[in-house]
Amino acid sequence: SSASHHMDLQVQGRRRLKDFPYVSAPHRDLMVELVSTVETRLDPHLLPCTLPPDVQYYQNPTNTAHASLHIRSGHKSSPIDFILGSWLHCELPSGGALNITSLSANLNPSTDAPNFLLELIQSSPTSLILILDLPPRKDLVLHPDYLRTFYEDTQLERQRQLLEKIPEVRPYFSSSLYIRCVVSPTAILVRIESEAGGGRRMEEIVQDHVHPIAKEVLGIWLDRCASGESSVGETERAALEKRDQLVKNKTIEIDLGSSMPRLFGPEITDRVLGAIQEVFNS
Amino acid sequence: SSASHHMDLQVQGRRRLKDFPYVSAPHRDLMVELVSTVETRLDPHLLPCTLPPDVQYYQNPTNTAHASLHIRSGHKSSPIDFILGSWLHCELPSGGALNITSLSANLNPSTDAPNFLLELIQSSPTSLILILDLPPRKDLVLHPDYLRTFYEDTQLERQRQLLEKIPEVRPYFSSSLYIRCVVSPTAILVRIESEAGGGRRMEEIVQDHVHPIAKEVLGIWLDRCASGESSVGETERAALEKRDQLVKNKTIEIDLGSSMPRLFGPEITDRVLGAIQEVFNS
Repeated sequence: SSASHHMDLQVQGRRRLKDFPYVSAPHRDLMVELVSTVETRLDPHLLPCTLPPDVQYYQNPTNTAHASLHIRSGHKSSPIDFILGSWLHCELPSGGALNITSLSANLNPSTDAPNFLLELIQSSPTSLILILDLPPRKDLVLHPDYLRTFYEDTQLERQRQLLEKIPEVRPYFSSSLYIRCVVSPTAILVRIESEAGGGRRMEEIVQDHVHPIAKEVLGIWLDRCASGESSVGETERAALEKRDQLVKNKTIEIDLGSSMPRLFGPEITDRVLGAIQEVFNS
Repeated sequence: SSASHHMDLQVQGRRRLKDFPYVSAPHRDLMVELVSTVETRLDPHLLPCTLPPDVQYYQNPTNTAHASLHIRSGHKSSPIDFILGSWLHCELPSGGALNITSLSANLNPSTDAPNFLLELIQSSPTSLILILDLPPRKDLVLHPDYLRTFYEDTQLERQRQLLEKIPEVRPYFSSSLYIRCVVSPTAILVRIESEAGGGRRMEEIVQDHVHPIAKEVLGIWLDRCASGESSVGETERAALEKRDQLVKNKTIEIDLGSSMPRLFGPEITDRVLGAIQEVFNS
C-alpha cells in the first residue's frame, strides 16, 4: 500500500541518517549514540520525519557530493520544536573529502530554555572543527538570572575547559559574526589539528575527549532544558517566537545558503531548502 | 580661594592619571595617546572630573597598592554618558606587581551606538591580558542590521586577526561569563606571553602591534559611534537606558566588587565605589 511504502521510505531515511557512512568509527559512534539518546529520551514528544525521500537523502548530478537530512517535529503539546540530524560528504578537488555531521534540537516558545547544537566539520583526517553548545534563547546581558540557571549552575564551562587542555585543540572563530553572536559564553568552538599524530590520533581525541564531553553536554540539555520546566508567559512568548524565527532564518541563510548551490546545484538546493522551510514554518 | 584650590586638585588628579607611573614606556605611551585623543576629540562634550581628590588618587594603608581614577561626564546635550580612565598598581606577595590600566567611553541613550573599552592587565613584565572592544548596546542576535553597521562594515574583525597572527598571542577567556556576554563578536580578548623574548619583546609587541590596533579601534569608535548619528526614538530609548544601567551595575560588581576590598580594605572601597555610583546615577 501507499502507507506502508511511505513507512519503508521513512525507515530507510532514518537508517541512512544513522549510517554516517563516510566518517571514522569513533566519529560515527559519537553521532549514533547522541542521535539515539535524543530519539529515545524525547520519543513520546516526537512526530515521524515527514521530509520527502529525496530530501532525506540526496546527491549531486556528478555523484561527488552526498547528504542525508532528518527532521522530526515535536507534538504541539510538547516543548520540542524539532530535532534535526544530518550528514554531508563531499569529495574535494584536492583529492580529500569534506565531512560534516550535525545534531541540533530546538525548543518551542512554550519554554525559554536553551537549544542544543552539535556540529563536526572534518576537512581532512587530521583536521576537525567542533561546535558544541546550548545556544541561549534570550539576550544574556539583559537576563543574568538566565545566565546563572543554564550556564553557571550547570557548570558547562568545565566541559569547555576539559577540551581546551588537549594540546591539539585551538579556539575556532566562525567567519560569520552572526554565528559568533548566536552561541553562548560557554560554547565549545574549537579546531582540532592532529597532524603530528595523524588520523589515528584524531580518532583517539574524538573517542576519548569529544565523545564524553558531547554526551555530558547533551545530558545537561536533556535534564535541564528539554523538560520544558522553564515556562513563559504570553507577552514573553511573542518575543521568544520572533527571536527563534529570526535565528532559524539567519542560520539557514548562513549555513546552507552559500555552500548548498555550489555543492548540489540550484535545483536540489531549492528542493532541500524548501522542504526545511516548510517544516520550520509549519 | 576654594574654587582655585578645587581646580588645582583637578589638574593634579588629571596629571596623576596621565602619568601612568608604574608601567613600561610603550604601555604608558599607548595609554597617554588614547586618553589625549579622546579628551581632545570629545572636549566640547565633556564636563570636568568632579570626583573627590581622594578618589582621583588613592592608596591602601600599607602603601602596597596605588590607584588613580578619572571620570568625566558628558554634557546633557551630548551623546556622551562619560569617559573613564584609570590605573592600578599593586605589589604582589610573589615579589612582582600587578598593573592594570583602562580607558572606557560610554554613550548615553540618545544614541544606540556601541561603547569603547580598553583594558590592559599586566601581571608580570612578560604577561599581558588585553581587552579591546566596542561593546554593543543591543542584542546582536535580534538586530543583524546593527551588527552589519558597527561590526561588519567597520571591518573590526581585521584588527582582531592582525593581533591573532603574533605568535605570543593566545585567546583569553574571562572567568566571568557575564563579561564574555557583554563584548562584541569582534572583541579582542587575548593573553600575550613573551617569556622566551622577555620584557623587551613584550614592550615591542605593545609598541608595534597593540598600540596601532588600539588606536585604529578607537578611531573607528570616534568616527562611527561617538558622533551620535545613530539616534533612537522614545520607546527604544527606555529599553536602552535599562540595558545600559544593568551593564554598568553588573560590570562594577564584577570588576571592582571582588578585588577592591581585598586590595584596599572596606573603607576605601566604599568611598571609591560610592563616588563612581554617584557619577553613574546622576
